[in-house]
Amino acid sequence: MSGRKDHELEGVTLLGNKNTMYTFDYNFDVLERFTNKHIDNDYFVKFNCPEFTSLCPKTGQPDFATIYISYVPDQYLVESKSLKLYLFSFRNHGDFHEDCVNIIMKDLIKLLDPKYIEVWGKFTPRGGISIDPYCNYGKQGTKWEEIAYKRLCYHDMYPEKIDNR
Amino acid sequence: MSGRKDHELEGVTLLGNKNTMYTFDYNFDVLERFTNKHIDNDYFVKFNCPEFTSLCPKTGQPDFATIYISYVPDQYLVESKSLKLYLFSFRNHGDFHEDCVNIIMKDLIKLLDPKYIEVWGKFTPRGGISIDPYCNYGKQGTKWEEIAYKRLCYHDMYPEKIDNR
Amino acid sequence: MSGRKDHELEGVTLLGNKNTMYTFDYNFDVLERFTNKHIDNDYFVKFNCPEFTSLCPKTGQPDFATIYISYVPDQYLVESKSLKLYLFSFRNHGDFHEDCVNIIMKDLIKLLDPKYIEVWGKFTPRGGISIDPYCNYGKQGTKWEEIAYKRLCYHDMYPEKIDNR
Amino acid sequence: MSGRKDHELEGVTLLGNKNTMYTFDYNFDVLERFTNKHIDNDYFVKFNCPEFTSLCPKTGQPDFATIYISYVPDQYLVESKSLKLYLFSFRNHGDFHEDCVNIIMKDLIKLLDPKYIEVWGKFTPRGGISIDPYCNYGKQGTKWEEIAYKRLCYHDMYPEKIDNR
Amino acid sequence: MSGRKDHELEGVTLLGNKNTMYTFDYNFDVLERFTNKHIDNDYFVKFNCPEFTSLCPKTGQPDFATIYISYVPDQYLVESKSLKLYLFSFRNHGDFHEDCVNIIMKDLIKLLDPKYIEVWGKFTPRGGISIDPYCNYGKQGTKWEEIAYKRLCYHDMYPEKIDNR
Amino acid sequence: MSGRKDHELEGVTLLGNKNTMYTFDYNFDVLERFTNKHIDNDYFVKFNCPEFTSLCPKTGQPDFATIYISYVPDQYLVESKSLKLYLFSFRNHGDFHEDCVNIIMKDLIKLLDPKYIEVWGKFTPRGGISIDPYCNYGKQGTKWEEIAYKRLCYHDMYPEKIDNR
Amino acid sequence: MSGRKDHELEGVTLLGNKNTMYTFDYNFDVLERFTNKHIDNDYFVKFNCPEFTSLCPKTGQPDFATIYISYVPDQYLVESKSLKLYLFSFRNHGDFHEDCVNIIMKDLIKLLDPKYIEVWGKFTPRGGISIDPYCNYGKQGTKWEEIAYKRLCYHDMYPEKIDNR
Amino acid sequence: MSGRKDHELEGVTLLGNKNTMYTFDYNFDVLERFTNKHIDNDYFVKFNCPEFTSLCPKTGQPDFATIYISYVPDQYLVESKSLKLYLFSFRNHGDFHEDCVNIIMKDLIKLLDPKYIEVWGKFTPRGGISIDPYCNYGKQGTKWEEIAYKRLCYHDMYPEKIDNR
Amino acid sequence: MSGRKDHELEGVTLLGNKNTMYTFDYNFDVLERFTNKHIDNDYFVKFNCPEFTSLCPKTGQPDFATIYISYVPDQYLVESKSLKLYLFSFRNHGDFHEDCVNIIMKDLIKLLDPKYIEVWGKFTPRGGISIDPYCNYGKQGTKWEEIAYKRLCYHDMYPEKIDNR
Amino acid sequence: MSGRKDHELEGVTLLGNKNTMYTFDYNFDVLERFTNKHIDNDYFVKFNCPEFTSLCPKTGQPDFATIYISYVPDQYLVESKSLKLYLFSFRNHGDFHEDCVNIIMKDLIKLLDPKYIEVWGKFTPRGGISIDPYCNYGKQGTKWEEIAYKRLCYHDMYPEKIDNR
Ligand SMILES: [Ca+2]
Ligand SMILES: [Ca+2]
Ligand SMILES: [Ca+2]
Ligand SMILES: [Ca+2]
Ligand SMILES: [Ca+2]
Ligand SMILES: [Ca+2]
Ligand SMILES: [Ca+2]
Ligand SMILES: [Ca+2]
Ligand SMILES: [Ca+2]
Ligand SMILES: [Ca+2]
Ligand SMILES: [Ca+2]
Ligand SMILES: [Ca+2]
Ligand SMILES: [Ca+2]
Ligand SMILES: [Ca+2]
Ligand SMILES: [Ca+2]
Ligand SMILES: [Ca+2]
Repeated sequence: MSGRKDHELEGVTLLGNKNTMYTFDYNFDVLERFTNKHIDNDYFVKFNCPEFTSLCPKTGQPDFATIYISYVPDQYLVESKSLKLYLFSFRNHGDFHEDCVNIIMKDLIKLLDPKYIEVWGKFTPRGGISIDPYCNYGKQGTKWEEIAYKRLCYHDMYPEKIDNR
Repeated sequence: MSGRKDHELEGVTLLGNKNTMYTFDYNFDVLERFTNKHIDNDYFVKFNCPEFTSLCPKTGQPDFATIYISYVPDQYLVESKSLKLYLFSFRNHGDFHEDCVNIIMKDLIKLLDPKYIEVWGKFTPRGGISIDPYCNYGKQGTKWEEIAYKRLCYHDMYPEKIDNR
Repeated sequence: MSGRKDHELEGVTLLGNKNTMYTFDYNFDVLERFTNKHIDNDYFVKFNCPEFTSLCPKTGQPDFATIYISYVPDQYLVESKSLKLYLFSFRNHGDFHEDCVNIIMKDLIKLLDPKYIEVWGKFTPRGGISIDPYCNYGKQGTKWEEIAYKRLCYHDMYPEKIDNR
Repeated sequence: MSGRKDHELEGVTLLGNKNTMYTFDYNFDVLERFTNKHIDNDYFVKFNCPEFTSLCPKTGQPDFATIYISYVPDQYLVESKSLKLYLFSFRNHGDFHEDCVNIIMKDLIKLLDPKYIEVWGKFTPRGGISIDPYCNYGKQGTKWEEIAYKRLCYHDMYPEKIDNR
Repeated sequence: MSGRKDHELEGVTLLGNKNTMYTFDYNFDVLERFTNKHIDNDYFVKFNCPEFTSLCPKTGQPDFATIYISYVPDQYLVESKSLKLYLFSFRNHGDFHEDCVNIIMKDLIKLLDPKYIEVWGKFTPRGGISIDPYCNYGKQGTKWEEIAYKRLCYHDMYPEKIDNR
Repeated sequence: MSGRKDHELEGVTLLGNKNTMYTFDYNFDVLERFTNKHIDNDYFVKFNCPEFTSLCPKTGQPDFATIYISYVPDQYLVESKSLKLYLFSFRNHGDFHEDCVNIIMKDLIKLLDPKYIEVWGKFTPRGGISIDPYCNYGKQGTKWEEIAYKRLCYHDMYPEKIDNR
Repeated sequence: MSGRKDHELEGVTLLGNKNTMYTFDYNFDVLERFTNKHIDNDYFVKFNCPEFTSLCPKTGQPDFATIYISYVPDQYLVESKSLKLYLFSFRNHGDFHEDCVNIIMKDLIKLLDPKYIEVWGKFTPRGGISIDPYCNYGKQGTKWEEIAYKRLCYHDMYPEKIDNR
Repeated sequence: MSGRKDHELEGVTLLGNKNTMYTFDYNFDVLERFTNKHIDNDYFVKFNCPEFTSLCPKTGQPDFATIYISYVPDQYLVESKSLKLYLFSFRNHGDFHEDCVNIIMKDLIKLLDPKYIEVWGKFTPRGGISIDPYCNYGKQGTKWEEIAYKRLCYHDMYPEKIDNR
Repeated sequence: MSGRKDHELEGVTLLGNKNTMYTFDYNFDVLERFTNKHIDNDYFVKFNCPEFTSLCPKTGQPDFATIYISYVPDQYLVESKSLKLYLFSFRNHGDFHEDCVNIIMKDLIKLLDPKYIEVWGKFTPRGGISIDPYCNYGKQGTKWEEIAYKRLCYHDMYPEKIDNR
Repeated sequence: MSGRKDHELEGVTLLGNKNTMYTFDYNFDVLERFTNKHIDNDYFVKFNCPEFTSLCPKTGQPDFATIYISYVPDQYLVESKSLKLYLFSFRNHGDFHEDCVNIIMKDLIKLLDPKYIEVWGKFTPRGGISIDPYCNYGKQGTKWEEIAYKRLCYHDMYPEKIDNR
C-alpha cells in the first residue's frame, strides 16, 4: 500500500486504538497532532461535527449543536479521532454557546499554531430561538491576520432558512 | 461542572425562571444582558427567531415573520430568553414590517452598544406579495462603521426562491 | 365575467369586507359557510394554515403551528376568510396542542356537517421536542365512517425529517 | 421519421399552428382530442399545469394555481396545446377554487369520456391560507367507478409542507 | 384566557417549573401524564425528538439519534417536558440502538396504557453505516392489535435517501 | 395598540379598502407611497412577487414570472397593496420579458426617487428555455451610483439549478 | 475476482465494446438480454433514464424526458448498455409522449417476457404544460396480472411538485 | 452504566476491536450476530449503507451504490461492524448489480434466519442509466411469507427523481 | 394591448411561426436579434437551457447538458425562439464539452456584440465524472473587460453538490 | 458530423477504448491530455467526481469522498476518461484525506501546467466527524498567482449543512 509511512504517523496514538477512553469532562489534553507534509502550499481543512453536546451553565439542561471548524495549517494537522474525543469532553461542561465556540478555537490555536482558524456553532433552539456564534483568528504578523478580519466582515450574509421544523 | 461560574451569570434573571410573565405589549425593559468574556476577539452571534408576530397598523390583522439578528458584541451579550420575551412583546404591536425591523435594531443598540448589528425580517405574504426588510449598523468611529456600509452594499444579491407554497 | 353569481355568494359577508374586526378571543361565531354546487360528486378541500398561534395553558407562553385541514363537503363549504378569522381567535387561547386540534375539528363539524374531516397540527419545538396531533371524523351511518377509521389506521407512516434547524 | 403518421394526427389543428388565438373568456370549445392507439392497455396520462390563473368571484382579484390532471383514456387523448388554451380561458373567469377544479374535470369528461380522471388544484395563499381542492371520477358500470372511490378514500394522507415562503 | 383550567392540569408538575433537575441516569419515574379530554375520538399524537443521545454498550462512545414517537391515547396523554427529561436520562445509558427503541416503547406503554404506540429511532452513522430500528404495539383485545400488525407489514417501504453528508 | 399612528398612514388609501378595483390594463397611477420614518439609516426592503403575468407582444400568449424587487428608500416607501395592483395591471400588457423588468424599475424610480433599486424577473419556460432579466439603478451623485455598478458586476454568479420540472 | 463467470455473460456483446455504433433511428434489435440467476426469488429491477429524447410527430421539435422502467424478471434480464442504445434510437423518432412510453413497454415485454413491467415517462414542458404517461403490465395467468391492476389503481396519488423552474 | 451487560454481548468480537483486518475479497465468514432481547415483539431494523463498491464482471470497472437493508429479527441481530466488514469484502468482487443485491440478502438469511428481510441497491449511473435492484424474503410457513409478497407487489410506486446531477 | 409595437418587433421572424424547420446540423444562421429599448441602462439577461444535447467527437455517443447563458446587451437582444433553434442545431454536432461552450459564446458575441457574456455548461456524467466548463467575455476597451476578468477570478467558489443520483 | 477532427484528438487513447485496464494502485502515468483550442480565452473547467475511494493509512479501512476539481487550462486539457482511471488508482492507496487532495492537485499541475487549479475533497464521516480539505494553485509570475491567493482567502464562507443523515 502506497501513501503515508509509519514514521509519518508519529504522535497518532488514538486512531484505530481499541482501548479508547471516552472522557466527558472538558479535557484539552486528549488532542493530538501530526506533521503537515504540504507546508509549501497553504490550504484549508474543514471538520463537520454534527454530534456536539454541552450543558446550559444556568439550568444544567443539555444543548446540541453542529460545529464547523475550518483552518489553514502551518506545521501541524489535528488528528480527527482526537478531535472527536476532545469535543465529546464538553458533554458535561456548562457554558453559554458563545463561550464554547471561543474555547474550542483557542484550544486549537494552542495545539496547532495555525495560520488561520474559524469555528461556527449552530445550536438547536431553546424557547423558539436558536443561536449560532462564529469566531475566527489569523496569525499575527502574517497576511492571515488581515484575511481573518476580511472574513469576519463578510461573515454569513445569507443566513440559512430556519423554521424550527 | 466546568464552565461559567455563578458570578459570571450576573444580570441573568429570566433564564430558568419559573415565574416568567409573558407580556404582549411592546416592552423594551424585558431585555437583559451579560458580560462578554471574549472581548479580545471580535466575533459574530446570530439569533434565528422564526416565531415573530405583530399586527398590521391599518387593518389590525396579525403578521408573521422569521427575524434573523446578527451582531458583533462589545462589552455585552444579550441573554436569549429575554430576547424571546422582547420579541413576544410585539404580539399586539401595530407597525409596518419596515418599522418593526428598524425598532428591533435600535433597541438592541441601546441595550448592548455593539460593534456591529443587523436585523433581517422575512414576512409571510399578504395579497400574494411578501416583504423582507433588512437594516444594519456599525459603531461610529470604529472600522465597523465602514463594514456596515459594505455589507449593505452587497446585501442579498441572491434572493431566495419564493413561490408562496 | 362568467362564474359564481351574486346569489350564489349568499352568506359570504367577510370576504372583501373592509371593516373586518380581528378578534383574538376564541370565537366560533365568526365562521361562515356557502353552498356546495357539486354535491353530486364527493371531493376533498384542503386548507394549509401556517400562521396558527395559541398560548400554553400552564405557562402562558405563545405556541406556533401549521394547521392542515382537509374535508369532504356535504351541503356546505367553509368560506376561507372566515376560517382565517376563526383561527386568529386562538391567539389568546390557552390549551394543549392536543386540545386545539380536536376543538378545531369539532367546530367545523358543527358548522359544515361534512361527510369527512381531518385536522393535523404541526407545532414548533419546546425544549427540543415538537408535537404533531392528528384527529379525524367520518359521518356516522355513511361509508365515510369506515374511511375515517382506515385513514387513522394508516396515518403518518413516513414521519417527516425533523432536526429543529 | 418513424412514429405517428399524418392520418393518425387527425383532429389536431392547434399544435404548431401559427395563428393561434388566445381567448381569455371561459371556452370549452377550444379543446381537441385525438385517437388513443393503445386501447388494449389501460394507462395513466398526467398533465402538470403550473400557470393557471382565474379571478375571485367576489373581489375580482386574480388567483394563481398549479393544476394537476391525471386520467386513464378510453378512445381519446386530449391534445396538450388545446388543453393549454382551455386553461388560459379561465383567465377572466370568476369562481371559487372549489368550483374551478370541478368544472375542469366535468369538461374533460365531456370531451374524452375517459375511464378515470382526477383534478387537483393547488392555489397560492390569500390571507395566509391556501386552498387545494381535489375531485375525481370513474366511469359508471366499470371497475374504475370503484377505483375512483378508493383513490378518494386514501387521498393526500401526507399533505406537503406549506410555510408560505 | 379560555382553554384548559387549573384542575385539568393535575399531575403536571414539571412544565414551567424553575427547579427542574436534569438527571442523566436512566429514569422511568420522571415521566408524567395528564387526562385525555377527547376520549370519544381516537386520534394520533406524534413527538419529534431530534436530541437523543446514549452510549455504546461495548465501547462507551456516545451515540446520537432522532426519535419519533407516535401514539393513540386512551385515558392519558404524556406531558412533553417530562418526556424530554425521560429521554435525557438515556445520556449515560449503554445499550444497542435496537434495545433503546424497545425500552422507550415499553416504558410509555407502562405509563399510558395507550391504544397504539410506535417508536422509530434514526441514528447517526458509525463506520459508514447507520441503524434505524422501529417497533410498535396495539392493545390486545382491541382493533389496534390488528392495526399494529398492518402498520408493521407496510413499514418504511420508501427508505429516505442517506449519503452520510 | 402601539406603533404607527393614523397620521403616519397618510396617503395609504388602498390597504384594507373594501372597494378595491382590479384593473388589468397597465396603470402607473395605482401606485401609492408613504413616509419613511427611518431616514437616518439606509436599509433594504425586498418584495417577493410570485404572481406576475403578462402577454407575449407577438403571439398574445400569457407569460408567467416571479418578480423580485429590492430597494433602499430615501423619503418614501411603496405601499404593498398598491404594488400588488400595479403588478396586476400588466395582466393584459404585451411586452418582452426584458421590457417588463425595465419598465417596473423605471416606474418605481419615478414614484419613490429611491437611493437604490433592482428588479429581477424569473419567467417560466417557453420552448424549453426560460429568461431571467435583471436591472438596477443607483441615484446619480450619491454613493449608490457606484454600488449599483458593483452589484451589476457581480450579479448572479451562481445561477440556480433549472431543469424545467 | 469472484462473481459472474464468462459463460454466465453469454449474449452480452455490447458492454465494454469499443466499436459500439450509435444508431438514432428507432431500433428494437439492439436490445440484449442475459440469464437471471435468481429465478427462485421474485425481485424488482429499476432503470433510471434521464437522457431520453424524441421528436414531436407534428412539429419535428425535440422532446426531452426522464424514463423510469421497473420490472420483475422471469428468465431474462435486460443488459443496461443495450437498453441505453435502444433508448438512443428514439432520437429521431416522431411520436406523442403517450405513444413512446407504450412502445418501450411492449418492446421490453417482447424481449424479456417479464412477470411484471411498468414504464413512466416524465417530459419537460411545452407551452407551460408537461405530460407524464405511465403504463404497466402483468403476465396473464399469473398473480402479476392482478398486481399490475392494483398498481395502476393506486398510481401516483402524490404528484410531485412541478413549477417549471 | 445501565444497559446491556457483558454476557449479553457474547459473540460480538469486532466492535471496538483495534486489530480489525479489512479484507477486500468476498467473505461471508466475517459476519457476526448477537441475541435479540425483544423476541416478544416483532420489529424492524434498517441499515443505511452508502459506501458500497464492487466491480463490473465484464469490464472490471468499479461500481458504487447505496445499499438499504431492512429486516425483522427472530432470534438474532446482525452486529453492525461485522456487516460493514462484510460489505467491504465486495470491493474486489465482480458481479452485476442484480446479483450483488440477491447475494447480500441470501447471506443474511443464512446468518440470521430472520422473519423478514429486504435489500435495495441504488447504484450510480453508467452511460447515463442507473440500476436499482430490490429483493425481499419472508420466512416460509409464517405470516411474513405473505407480507413479503405484499411488499413486493407495492414496491417503489414513487420512484425518486433522478437527473444524474 | 399596450407594450411593444409591431415596428419594434422587426427582425423577429421565428417567434409564433408555424412553419419552423428544426435543423439538427450546427447552424449559426438561425439566430435572430431585436433592438434593445433600454440602452441607457446596463442590465443582465439570463437564459436557462436544460435541453441541450450534442455528440461525443470520438465515440458518437449523445451527451446532455444544461446551458446557462447570461449577458449584458448593447444594441441588440437575442430572440429566444431563434436561440432555441440554434441550440437544437448541436444535436448532431460532435465536440468536447469544453469546445461547445466556447463556440456558443463566440457565436453570440458575433450576433450581438454584447458588453458582456458568459456561458456555463453542466453536463451529465460519463463513467462517474461530469464536466462543467464556463467561459466569459467583456468588450475590449470598456469597463466590462475588467468585469469579465473579475467574474472569472471568483467563478464557482461553491461547487454544487453532485452525487450522480 | 461537424466538430473536433481526428487530428485534434491526438493523444486521446483511452476514450472509447474497449481494452481499458483498471489499475487500483496509485498511477500517475494513466493521465492523458489533449490540446486546448481556445487559448485566446481564459475559462474554467470543473470535474465532479463523486466516486472517489482510498484507504486509511493507519487502519487500512476504506474512505469515500466526492472530489471537485476546477482549473483554468493553458495549452492542455485533461481527458476525462484518463482522469477517471487516475482517480480509480487511489482505490488501494493509504493516505490521510489532506494528503490525497494535495497529491491530486500536484499531479494535475505536472500534467497540464495550468494557469490555475483547485481541488476540494468532501469525505464521508468517521466517528461522527467528516473532513473536507481544499487546496489551490496559480501559476507563478502570472495574474493567477494572485487570484489563487484571493480564492483561498474567501474559501467556503458558507459551509454546507451536514447532519450525517
Ligand atoms: Ca427548518
Ligand atoms: Ca414555484
Ligand atoms: Ca412557499
Ligand atoms: Ca416555498
Ligand atoms: Ca429542523
Ligand atoms: Ca429543519
Ligand atoms: Ca417554514
Ligand atoms: Ca446524507
Ligand atoms: Ca434535473
Ligand atoms: Ca425545474
Ligand atoms: Ca422545479
Ligand atoms: Ca439529481
Ligand atoms: Ca446526483
Ligand atoms: Ca443528486
Ligand atoms: Ca447530513
Ligand atoms: Ca444529509
